[in-house]
Amino acid sequence: MAEHEFTTTRKVEFNETDMAGIVHYSNFFRYMEYAEHAFFRSLGRSIVNSELGVGWPRVHCSCDYRQPLKFEDEVEIHLLVSAKTSKTISYNFRFRKDDTEVARGKVTVACVRRNKAGGMKATRIPPEIYALFEVAPEDKLAE
Amino acid sequence: MAEHEFTTTRKVEFNETDMAGIVHYSNFFRYMEYAEHAFFRSLGRSIVNSELGVGWPRVHCSCDYRQPLKFEDEVEIHLLVSAKTSKTISYNFRFRKDDTEVARGKVTVACVRRNKAGGMKATRIPPEIYALFEVAPEDKLAE
Amino acid sequence: MAEHEFTTTRKVEFNETDMAGIVHYSNFFRYMEYAEHAFFRSLGRSIVNSELGVGWPRVHCSCDYRQPLKFEDEVEIHLLVSAKTSKTISYNFRFRKDDTEVARGKVTVACVRRNKAGGMKATRIPPEIYALFEVAPEDKLAE
Amino acid sequence: MAEHEFTTTRKVEFNETDMAGIVHYSNFFRYMEYAEHAFFRSLGRSIVNSELGVGWPRVHCSCDYRQPLKFEDEVEIHLLVSAKTSKTISYNFRFRKDDTEVARGKVTVACVRRNKAGGMKATRIPPEIYALFEVAPEDKLAE
Repeated sequence: MAEHEFTTTRKVEFNETDMAGIVHYSNFFRYMEYAEHAFFRSLGRSIVNSELGVGWPRVHCSCDYRQPLKFEDEVEIHLLVSAKTSKTISYNFRFRKDDTEVARGKVTVACVRRNKAGGMKATRIPPEIYALFEVAPEDKLAE
Repeated sequence: MAEHEFTTTRKVEFNETDMAGIVHYSNFFRYMEYAEHAFFRSLGRSIVNSELGVGWPRVHCSCDYRQPLKFEDEVEIHLLVSAKTSKTISYNFRFRKDDTEVARGKVTVACVRRNKAGGMKATRIPPEIYALFEVAPEDKLAE
Repeated sequence: MAEHEFTTTRKVEFNETDMAGIVHYSNFFRYMEYAEHAFFRSLGRSIVNSELGVGWPRVHCSCDYRQPLKFEDEVEIHLLVSAKTSKTISYNFRFRKDDTEVARGKVTVACVRRNKAGGMKATRIPPEIYALFEVAPEDKLAE
Repeated sequence: MAEHEFTTTRKVEFNETDMAGIVHYSNFFRYMEYAEHAFFRSLGRSIVNSELGVGWPRVHCSCDYRQPLKFEDEVEIHLLVSAKTSKTISYNFRFRKDDTEVARGKVTVACVRRNKAGGMKATRIPPEIYALFEVAPEDKLAE
């Protein structure tokens, strides 16, 4: 029962806007992470798990903005698993307001362990996590 | 005397870190914007200019992360103008700590005017702004 | 049917934590504002209302922290109207996790109008807004 | 040569503003922390010091706002040590723009150690840190 998609919503908060009256562009990356962590929870997991001892730093991300978001806008965030390797997971995100797509994003995260010096080294995704995700079908990704 | 590059530095602040002990990935986009606005100031301009009446929303951005940044790290942010059209400017950003590249980013901004309904419409970059920027040489962009 | 209290909850997000592994202290003020705006919505209003033409800058705030909040903690935010004058509203906030109080906050907001120069001047709270709030009973405020 | 005051400046960044066109009130607490950490650095120390093994969570803070700050405003942040006990340090902050006071803040931090369960327990300030600070003279604090 691996999953490849997840949808959540959030309402734009006042502090997320800037003096242009719209959501600051950096906050879309907070929204993506918010959806990713809610996806983990929907699978019975937390992205933070001291027993597994792995972390998930971002190695790549991008966003294309089509429409601005404003205070109290209700935004739907749709997550799709777009790729997985033994050490990374990639997600596509689509932001919709009132059925209009307002933005698209991508994030690739690496699974890492800390070494003794405090550095991070890529590691295999623990099997119990790896099994939770499957890559979304081509047609969904191509939409 | 159009310019195609600019360098600034900043020191990582405590509130920019997250529980992983490193700068939250979304903050690199704040750093890019910080460098862009300092670039404008270095050209005798502010990105916010009520006389010109234009705004600069972001239409695309991305970042590749190689090394994490930590509290009080001194980070050099190097901006290059990578493209310009009549209505957009694109920048490349390179983040360095102690001469090691820690991240690379890209941002494309559109020049817009507000219409009466409050919406934003792409518009020609005012000539006095357009003349300030030139695209960086190929070899610099290819580095 | 004026109201004097409101309760909402939120789950701590990753980007709200700092390298100490706990919610950054400044974010409690975002949480207070979040609760205030949800309170307005519960009364059928938005804090942002272009017809009324008033804004609500904060003139005073404070917070006492007793316990830290961590990633994915579910926090209950309880708002009480503690005072109102013709031009200001004051709120008390209590943050609880698992029935333990983790923090207390206070915020006083002023009702303002913009003048032509863009400055803000305190003004009477519009009657339709003023009528929505009543000050909480002494015993609730003294808790 | 204990110190009781410190002054730094910063320029308001775009992402620190909100849709009201002014610095979001929560960011004044980031500015206070920024000044505190720069104060530590001016004394040859970092607030983060793994050898000492102590942390400095905030236990109380407040802010009074008199004038808004806007994008690219240059703000002077003046820190005064207002009190110290064996386990806490208190600071007063005054924010000035063009010689006008725009805000006043207070922060009290506690010195803590982590226990094995990850909790934080108040502890004596290490003597090498305690010796760095002295309480500002009455007349300065009363200003």
